[in-house]
Amino acid sequence: MPEREVHLLAAGTELPGPPIDTAAVAARFGMPAVWEQWVEAFVGTRTRHLVTDLETGQALQRLEDIAASAATRALKAANLAPADVDLVVLATSTPDRLMPATVSMVAERLGIDQVPAYQLQSGCTGAVQALEVARSLLVAGAGRTALVIGGDVCAKHLDLGMKLAELPPAQQVGVMLFGDGAGAAVLGVEPTPSSAVLRSTLVRLVGLGRPPGHTVEWFGLADRHTDLPAGHEDYAAIQELVPAMAAEVLGELLDRLGWDGDEVDFLLPPQLSGRMTEQIVAGLDVPAAHEVSCVAQTGNTGNALPFFQLESVLPLMAEGDRAVGLSIESSKWIKAGFAVERL
Amino acid sequence: MPEREVHLLAAGTELPGPPIDTAAVAARFGMPAVWEQWVEAFVGTRTRHLVTDLETGQALQRLEDIAASAATRALKAANLAPADVDLVVLATSTPDRLMPATVSMVAERLGIDQVPAYQLQSGCTGAVQALEVARSLLVAGAGRTALVIGGDVCAKHLDLGMKLAELPPAQQVGVMLFGDGAGAAVLGVEPTPSSAVLRSTLVRLVGLGRPPGHTVEWFGLADRHTDLPAGHEDYAAIQELVPAMAAEVLGELLDRLGWDGDEVDFLLPPQLSGRMTEQIVAGLDVPAAHEVSCVAQTGNTGNALPFFQLESVLPLMAEGDRAVGLSIESSKWIKAGFAVERL
Repeated sequence: MPEREVHLLAAGTELPGPPIDTAAVAARFGMPAVWEQWVEAFVGTRTRHLVTDLETGQALQRLEDIAASAATRALKAANLAPADVDLVVLATSTPDRLMPATVSMVAERLGIDQVPAYQLQSGCTGAVQALEVARSLLVAGAGRTALVIGGDVCAKHLDLGMKLAELPPAQQVGVMLFGDGAGAAVLGVEPTPSSAVLRSTLVRLVGLGRPPGHTVEWFGLADRHTDLPAGHEDYAAIQELVPAMAAEVLGELLDRLGWDGDEVDFLLPPQLSGRMTEQIVAGLDVPAAHEVSCVAQTGNTGNALPFFQLESVLPLMAEGDRAVGLSIESSKWIKAGFAVERL
Repeated sequence: MPEREVHLLAAGTELPGPPIDTAAVAARFGMPAVWEQWVEAFVGTRTRHLVTDLETGQALQRLEDIAASAATRALKAANLAPADVDLVVLATSTPDRLMPATVSMVAERLGIDQVPAYQLQSGCTGAVQALEVARSLLVAGAGRTALVIGGDVCAKHLDLGMKLAELPPAQQVGVMLFGDGAGAAVLGVEPTPSSAVLRSTLVRLVGLGRPPGHTVEWFGLADRHTDLPAGHEDYAAIQELVPAMAAEVLGELLDRLGWDGDEVDFLLPPQLSGRMTEQIVAGLDVPAAHEVSCVAQTGNTGNALPFFQLESVLPLMAEGDRAVGLSIESSKWIKAGFAVERL
């Protein structure tokens, strides 16, 4: 059975508020100047954007807001209107509420109705999972145009009363690594002059027998006033496993497509700390690839991140160019990747 | 392009702990005997199961536990092993944590690895959304066997300190309507002697311009110690809209399949209060259909519910029998349905 081809028509993104530089974070939490240099060297994130006002703790925007903006931009870049959208898939680890799903509120904001909408609960591989689900729905005949959205906002997880100086360095990396953002892509079953083919998406759970590398709890009426732990990040396990997993998923994608490593023109790597991204990229055999990273400007925006990379890379791709994106989720270990080719 | 046919091989379910009758709930919250009769008449749920011990408030089981049990039963009923599963889709409105997704923990419990796993955040239509996503992934060639799971647990939402007697009747209905549970189904691309064809799945957002009928908040580090409202249910809107939406989705499904209403042998209606289920069923033109309801024994188990109905109906279906399931989500209004035919 010949598979219906799915095209990546455009991408769009949104960052909340102004960039917050490391000096501003240092001032807010009473950290010394040497700490700023440490963040620069080890984390590599110079600025990030947050939906929370660092001074007041007020949540200025919700995921719904920035996801709607990113989706509007992606549709505009694809020369399409909300009425052209046949299905919506949104991925996040930080939904505004448990119900309704944020995807339904984003649809309302865009005026999208009478179509299927799905929300995936996921961490760093959520964008690829959303691309895979949307691609499959299009291949299975669910419509002609899919709006795929990913985003994360840390407002409810950000404890402004934290004693940053007293946290171990690995936890400080965690705090400084993340940023809020949203991104979107439009998929379609017909090419356009500026589209690229979404050649493959790969999502694979690889958690069996491995403890979670990252846990995040939520609280409800029954336990909100307790002091149960809010989560845990095993940064040592992440440092150890992510580079190897990134190399594995690249290999599997290239095998599946029959591409050689030196035929990859653009590499969209996982965005952990700048230093770890360097280490990941060094372990990938794609000698001719131009690296598309955004960690210095935005931090790791979780489910939004691959859309920032796609928004950068799509205009750079010439005929015949190939791009590969890689994402690793440390929560219970998922490796994921996607491949795009400009015809 | 001929579409690959997807078959419903088996279903399985799990209820946590012993049945809790209305008298036990009345005793726990100091309600009078007349209230038990009111629950019987208006809500129609005689027993429900909860993951929470009503006396101590202790969470006895998690979604992960009951979802793994239901999935194990469904696989056993399909004569398949976890190693046969090519992809997993789980739907819930009450994940155990935000990260990892509960689906990843369930996969671990079953020994499933190296496959894609997805978790949908949804309310009462989540089971149909999961069936639709899994069906599309199979049609698009992602594998031969899919494990589809739905479940909900109220442990984190249950405020045992609530003054039940002081709540308005509509909120009391909400409290008494829900029960915890998990269900699963196995889909495959080849029929078996006891399988039925999953003829169609339909998911449609219909929330544009309608306020949410049901909201549920979660709390994190930043807001867990506040007293922000935990959610809201507009039972009047639900009573008004659900029967009409159920009739609409039934009509669309029958149109799509070219089935007449009198060719439907089994009807799996939305499970709101017993009285409302009666009203919904009365408005559906399927005169020969046998109603498959479980609200009296389990209450509304949310994302699990259609699997309880499927587990009941599959062994009853003779050659040529047709069944239609309907779900309406009130959070931001999604109508959904599915159609099954035994060949």
